[in-house]
Amino acid sequence: MALVKFIEYADASAEVRAVYDDIMASRKVDWINNFWKALANDPVTLKRTWESVKQVMAPGALDSLTKELLYIAVSVTNNCTYCINSHTAIARKAGMTDAMFAELQAVVAMANETNRLVIGYQVETDERIANAAKQR
Amino acid sequence: MALVKFIEYADASAEVRAVYDDIMASRKVDWINNFWKALANDPVTLKRTWESVKQVMAPGALDSLTKELLYIAVSVTNNCTYCINSHTAIARKAGMTDAMFAELQAVVAMANETNRLVIGYQVETDERIANAAKQR
Amino acid sequence: MALVKFIEYADASAEVRAVYDDIMASRKVDWINNFWKALANDPVTLKRTWESVKQVMAPGALDSLTKELLYIAVSVTNNCTYCINSHTAIARKAGMTDAMFAELQAVVAMANETNRLVIGYQVETDERIANAAKQR
Amino acid sequence: MALVKFIEYADASAEVRAVYDDIMASRKVDWINNFWKALANDPVTLKRTWESVKQVMAPGALDSLTKELLYIAVSVTNNCTYCINSHTAIARKAGMTDAMFAELQAVVAMANETNRLVIGYQVETDERIANAAKQR
Amino acid sequence: MALVKFIEYADASAEVRAVYDDIMASRKVDWINNFWKALANDPVTLKRTWESVKQVMAPGALDSLTKELLYIAVSVTNNCTYCINSHTAIARKAGMTDAMFAELQAVVAMANETNRLVIGYQVETDERIANAAKQR
Amino acid sequence: MALVKFIEYADASAEVRAVYDDIMASRKVDWINNFWKALANDPVTLKRTWESVKQVMAPGALDSLTKELLYIAVSVTNNCTYCINSHTAIARKAGMTDAMFAELQAVVAMANETNRLVIGYQVETDERIANAAKQR
Repeated sequence: MALVKFIEYADASAEVRAVYDDIMASRKVDWINNFWKALANDPVTLKRTWESVKQVMAPGALDSLTKELLYIAVSVTNNCTYCINSHTAIARKAGMTDAMFAELQAVVAMANETNRLVIGYQVETDERIANAAKQR
Repeated sequence: MALVKFIEYADASAEVRAVYDDIMASRKVDWINNFWKALANDPVTLKRTWESVKQVMAPGALDSLTKELLYIAVSVTNNCTYCINSHTAIARKAGMTDAMFAELQAVVAMANETNRLVIGYQVETDERIANAAKQR
Repeated sequence: MALVKFIEYADASAEVRAVYDDIMASRKVDWINNFWKALANDPVTLKRTWESVKQVMAPGALDSLTKELLYIAVSVTNNCTYCINSHTAIARKAGMTDAMFAELQAVVAMANETNRLVIGYQVETDERIANAAKQR
Repeated sequence: MALVKFIEYADASAEVRAVYDDIMASRKVDWINNFWKALANDPVTLKRTWESVKQVMAPGALDSLTKELLYIAVSVTNNCTYCINSHTAIARKAGMTDAMFAELQAVVAMANETNRLVIGYQVETDERIANAAKQR
Repeated sequence: MALVKFIEYADASAEVRAVYDDIMASRKVDWINNFWKALANDPVTLKRTWESVKQVMAPGALDSLTKELLYIAVSVTNNCTYCINSHTAIARKAGMTDAMFAELQAVVAMANETNRLVIGYQVETDERIANAAKQR
Repeated sequence: MALVKFIEYADASAEVRAVYDDIMASRKVDWINNFWKALANDPVTLKRTWESVKQVMAPGALDSLTKELLYIAVSVTNNCTYCINSHTAIARKAGMTDAMFAELQAVVAMANETNRLVIGYQVETDERIANAAKQR
């Protein structure tokens, strides 16, 4: 159970409502999910977090769906049930097919595996790789 | 320093050389990086890991570059220096621009932040989200 | 569901009861929470863990509330529901207000974010910072 | 080695310089550390991250030093060398004594230990604890 | 709730049934657990994962029980409830006693604690230790 | 670089020397490694940590080598270089062969992989597994 009360729209301050309105308008939905209702206990964090998410997740050099897949990859690695569910829902809406979902999971799992082989063997980065990884 | 010796091509068994040859052919390179040279101490794991990576990272419903970005997202979350370097190098070669790299980092960092807000407030998944996340 | 049975006071050995008595006396409560009842299956670990927790969490150079906040910060980062709940309960009792709780979550989330920006960009520590971080 | 070039003040755009100036003014220092110089490759993320850090780390219901200690607790749990060094440096400047540093480490380590005992035994949260953890 | 449907034996393709049959034969059970039924949505990952698990967990230089204990140690550190349950069930069947289970948890917890003391103090590896850790 | 000075035997208090003497006697070595020299800045934590490690790592229902392997499994999952090195050194001395080391790494990596498949698909624990995992 959440450690704070959820702030419903009807009970929200003008400051919180402004954020709720922007979330609904930006996402083209007519309801607010629990995450924001919990954060609304701290209006400053609510506003900053929403504005940051909106900025970071907007399409740019990477499209929106790719960004959602990256979000899921992190959330699976960190084991965040809410986050996996909410970003899988958004990704499906944005066009993620079952095949894409399955490949995403396979890559995330494989990366978690090879990360530990590298760490377990304490492999040093090849000079050529370090050079190729750097900005030109 | 790596906890095992690196097995160079010249010193490798036929079994290990076969994997090395496939890595070089698949990746269109003429050298083997330290990760595989360390794993070659355990030829069964070398072969299985390479074949798994090759299968998982091949383009499918997701293209190769997206898969590399997902790999980096996991590796950053797990703090694996070697993995971040090697997959950033591959991603750059596959077309990742500086702008894409920057957006990738911003998404990974943001996901790590909001994951903890969700967990810290112990927010329960909305029923609507759980339904929308599920396979149709 | 817990993987072991909970050892109730009535069924506990003298050795376990002595620890339970000390927990209740130290914390000024008249009941034992599930964590200790699970650990009581292994009386040596029960005793060592309780004595360690008691020593580490006692006020010293840092006061008790600050220590509880640190405990929550780690538990959120590790995603331990039980631990977040139990230490939030203790922290509230020790004077943590809603505003403090909200700021705690904001700092924990922000640290998780910037940790990944540093790691993702593979930023080396500035020499000045390394020097300033060291004990004088 | 960092995966991007560091943007020095002399080479920075007006937009980046404005952030650098604010960092130096706010922190009362006359130089910029590597983290910001790396982020400056992505001026939007630089600005957003700095403004977020400034907002979140400002004294409020929790004082600045407590916030720095929380930052270190997260960074140790995540194993971020740069972050441990930079926030230990800030914390020392803000009054963290050697004794406080030692107690901080002991609490962080202990929390990491008991988190895993709870998880390993799969202990369910006591109803009384869940109730006491919730906002009144 | 799982994000995909479970594929029951009766509804499975020949390809999936072949894997299910091998799982049941290898493990000497007459049913398939949810993990494989979820993975069966992606038959290629199902087959690869099962064959990898079968290869890696087979007795070799380390016996099966030791491998199960290692699996639990990782799963506790990563906080994977399903994995802790399933490998604890296998380990009990393979002879893990209550005393062994308790010692396993104590070691896992202690390692998580001392890992953070080392990281928190940023202790460099002793040259003697680095040498003794390396393959002869 | 470590954030504290190392306390050498010659400069240590009687209290610290007593711990150092016990470490050397118990481990049959004539020198103290950096971890303890760093912790010696906080003699209470030094003593508690050493006594805990000594108790937890002593052979019991699990033998010493198995406990060292578990320690390495956790340290690899957490990415603690010092810990991987020091416990690999101890494990080699206690009889860990190259083949055992390789199998250990393969199991740790595989567990990290399947942990994420379970989490990514959000698979619920089978009732039969939950029952079989519980203490009889």
